[in-house]
Amino acid sequence: MAASDKDTPAPIVRFDTEPSRYRHWQLTTEGPLARLAMKVDDAAPFRPGYALKLNSYDLGVDIELADAVTRLRFEHPEVRCVVVTSAVPSCFCAGANIYMLGSSSHDFKVNFCKFTNETRLALEEAGDRSGQRYVAALNGVASGGGYELALACHAIYLQDDGSSAVSFPETPLLAVLPGTGGLTRLVDKRKVRRDLADVFSTLAEGVRGKRAKDWGLVDEVFPKSRFDDEVKKRALALAEALPGKEGPGVKLPPVAVERRDEGGKSSAEYRHVSVVVDRHKRVAELTLRGPSDEPAPSPAAFRERGVDNWAFALFRELDAALLDLRFNFPEVGLIVVRTVGDPERVRAHDRALLALAETDWLAREVVLHMARVLKRFELSARSIFATLEPGSCFAGSLFEVALLADRSYMLDAEGGPRIGLSPANFGPLRMANGLTRLETRFLATPARVAALAGETELLDAAGAAERGLVTFTPDDIDWEDDVRIAIEERASLSPDALTGMEANLRFAGPETMETKIFARLSAWQNWIFQRPNATGPRGALTMYGRPERPEFDWRRT
Amino acid sequence: MAASDKDTPAPIVRFDTEPSRYRHWQLTTEGPLARLAMKVDDAAPFRPGYALKLNSYDLGVDIELADAVTRLRFEHPEVRCVVVTSAVPSCFCAGANIYMLGSSSHDFKVNFCKFTNETRLALEEAGDRSGQRYVAALNGVASGGGYELALACHAIYLQDDGSSAVSFPETPLLAVLPGTGGLTRLVDKRKVRRDLADVFSTLAEGVRGKRAKDWGLVDEVFPKSRFDDEVKKRALALAEALPGKEGPGVKLPPVAVERRDEGGKSSAEYRHVSVVVDRHKRVAELTLRGPSDEPAPSPAAFRERGVDNWAFALFRELDAALLDLRFNFPEVGLIVVRTVGDPERVRAHDRALLALAETDWLAREVVLHMARVLKRFELSARSIFATLEPGSCFAGSLFEVALLADRSYMLDAEGGPRIGLSPANFGPLRMANGLTRLETRFLATPARVAALAGETELLDAAGAAERGLVTFTPDDIDWEDDVRIAIEERASLSPDALTGMEANLRFAGPETMETKIFARLSAWQNWIFQRPNATGPRGALTMYGRPERPEFDWRRT
Repeated sequence: MAASDKDTPAPIVRFDTEPSRYRHWQLTTEGPLARLAMKVDDAAPFRPGYALKLNSYDLGVDIELADAVTRLRFEHPEVRCVVVTSAVPSCFCAGANIYMLGSSSHDFKVNFCKFTNETRLALEEAGDRSGQRYVAALNGVASGGGYELALACHAIYLQDDGSSAVSFPETPLLAVLPGTGGLTRLVDKRKVRRDLADVFSTLAEGVRGKRAKDWGLVDEVFPKSRFDDEVKKRALALAEALPGKEGPGVKLPPVAVERRDEGGKSSAEYRHVSVVVDRHKRVAELTLRGPSDEPAPSPAAFRERGVDNWAFALFRELDAALLDLRFNFPEVGLIVVRTVGDPERVRAHDRALLALAETDWLAREVVLHMARVLKRFELSARSIFATLEPGSCFAGSLFEVALLADRSYMLDAEGGPRIGLSPANFGPLRMANGLTRLETRFLATPARVAALAGETELLDAAGAAERGLVTFTPDDIDWEDDVRIAIEERASLSPDALTGMEANLRFAGPETMETKIFARLSAWQNWIFQRPNATGPRGALTMYGRPERPEFDWRRT
Repeated sequence: MAASDKDTPAPIVRFDTEPSRYRHWQLTTEGPLARLAMKVDDAAPFRPGYALKLNSYDLGVDIELADAVTRLRFEHPEVRCVVVTSAVPSCFCAGANIYMLGSSSHDFKVNFCKFTNETRLALEEAGDRSGQRYVAALNGVASGGGYELALACHAIYLQDDGSSAVSFPETPLLAVLPGTGGLTRLVDKRKVRRDLADVFSTLAEGVRGKRAKDWGLVDEVFPKSRFDDEVKKRALALAEALPGKEGPGVKLPPVAVERRDEGGKSSAEYRHVSVVVDRHKRVAELTLRGPSDEPAPSPAAFRERGVDNWAFALFRELDAALLDLRFNFPEVGLIVVRTVGDPERVRAHDRALLALAETDWLAREVVLHMARVLKRFELSARSIFATLEPGSCFAGSLFEVALLADRSYMLDAEGGPRIGLSPANFGPLRMANGLTRLETRFLATPARVAALAGETELLDAAGAAERGLVTFTPDDIDWEDDVRIAIEERASLSPDALTGMEANLRFAGPETMETKIFARLSAWQNWIFQRPNATGPRGALTMYGRPERPEFDWRRT
């Protein structure tokens, strides 16, 4: 119905891959260093219709990068510095492919940018939290999303050869923004002076050599003859300054899933996660199953279990399920989350995992992964309701899912559900705003968070309601109608208004670079992606590469 | 060219008014209390085509409110608490008029919301900084923008009569957001629990009585019989807790201006400010003139001069000029700012004003007013260049205008311009992010700000460039071409991409409730205002009041 949306059919998006199947990246490791070299196969776009010239990227390229970033953390604990560079002469990366953007629907563009943003934040977080720093070795032109990828790195080295440059041509050439964190990282992370940032962001040809360093756009420039050596020297120095981790790594097998499609319902059955999409109601039922085993009794046993440790397995599946919903079920407006299992067992797993994470890098990586998946959930642009029913296990790390929901319904009845907190609720799984979900919930009454830390017993509906931990607690008589009506009502509202509303209500409190990227920058980019000046029939993004000039409505808004 | 934009011609917008000409508000004062009662004349909309039923508002209503808020500060220093209420039975305020919104162009909607936001922030700031607190006495239904107005008040009192309620029907009924600060103030100012905020923001009929208080949506509820008395008692208590100010107030006469329109140029000539708009080039030349007199030699002389004190007069004129540009010249993309005068005299006025402001409420109000005007400038969604030429006086408070520009050009020549700093650059004129413009500029090198505090001499182009205070310093030979080309290039870029780019580059550093409102919330609202689900031919805002249901594209984005 949206007149401006392109009608190219969206292919099914799958996120599973592994290095031997990469088409666009070369991943090699050598002691504490890894090299991640971009060499985009221009004949292998994610969908037909455009060629990935000049190391430009699309979702397929970014799925491989996301995979590499995750695998480096889990499979290569010995790596402490990753050099991101290009294997294409004179060209680091030309950014997101313009013809792909120009021919994509609005919702695809927004979801593509969001995923790309999450990958760049994950790469940044690997440096900050996991002792695995990324540096960008720009051995050619880095424009648009290419320079944005570099901005997410800890350090940026630029080859000084008279042609290698960094640039943001989005505004002058395409009438859009460097919206994958670019503008925010420029002035907030690198703290480039705002007038210089203004000049840079309107200069299609970009900035080279010494000026790029003087303006703070890159950290060092080296002549071509010394470039590789100087980068390597610095990468090694960075690696040596970081603590080593005891290997070996844990191999990540594909996430197994069985899919069915019948009677208007599509289901995806993972080991610990089920998703059932009712396409007619536009509702997804998401069920998370608690652990059926005891936590690993020792660090060695934890290592042995690897990806089969309950939390690791469940959150990998949840991540896959969320990405599947985002890209392949855009019409789903509401996710209703349930859990099944023993709340005490969830808490036991949380406690064991967090205790282990104090000394064990693998356990720590599992916790960081859980935190990233929960953040991905909150950013999925879907309404989220949690329903707490008998037999559920909303405790500890799984109670975070109830806390991230827009609202929760807990049955108040004899033998009804009980919830519980664990150390997982008090620090390790922070939101993008830097606060825990309990701190965000109780911004007005921070003393409540401290009081809750002392709650060791499970709580029934009355206890949970009294402490402000759930939204509604209907009894047996009201439950079915209350929940059904709430779901139907929510699914009837405008998807856009809900996305905007939730983006404003979910992230109260402080702003961080991360929330700025997803709020300020992404919201403006989404606006611009809707504007005829960019995406209309005569807009700059649509007209790119054609001989005619774009036409603008000059009214400033 | 934008297919979705409405074609209702925009009338010329003028902002001058005064209480005797109000059509929609009654302003009365009684000792330390003022009463600002809304009684919208439904037959006096700002432009023909809709009726302002149920105390709904449009730009005309808000222009009067903005005028009242400003006059109360300057003309009624004895007032320490302002009760905002309604003179229409059972109805406090129904918010922005829906038919007005539905029939307005996108750029008008955005500008209307921005001005409304600024008024609400000014009212909030009067409480925080000027000892003039606003309280909302909701003696009827306060929905949408009506409740948003209440949220900007220090305290909200709701009549408990079985029908008076607060509500945000925007999302459920209109598929837009409570975008005039509403969602942000709900969770960030009042810190309403986010799940309750979610329920509230999707409940068209709103929340009444005790529940409104329990959820933190209002501060107190009182039965109708006691409502006026209880509100008055609290208003008096608030007033008494605030320090009094020695009167009398200063009467605000209209800002005088002479307008001409010839040869494709529109000019507005104020006493200290000139604006010349070249409609063809889409550029406005803004000239600010420095003081021609010495600063008032005593508090009494300052009071006597009143609105004729240079800074007060200039910033009142600048404010009028900026609003004129925003609403009446939407196609202007770039403002080029010049100054004319003696930089030392600007600094002398700054020093005298700031010294006086330490003890004198009127001087303090003038400074707060200057700060608000500078913030309005930064939020005007226009590119801003400053050109520093011989005879200019970019010093102190006027140098803030060069600092808020996206970039500055300073001529490097014999007898060229000189700039200078004053105490006005180091605290009293903060940006919305809570920092000074120098702090924002030098986020990467805060020591520079401290060093600049010691600079007492005027600086030429070389000195200014060395200290990072200007962007470019062309010499005589390059000046003309450099500046002309920069202006032409800027004016050729997509207005939307520039708006988004500037919104991201101008406000680095911390976020505040104020920046959140203008970035996160407004950007999402702007996006939604473009979405067919709201403003398309079958969108909810367009279809409001018709028997058919809106039609939604269900894809979540």
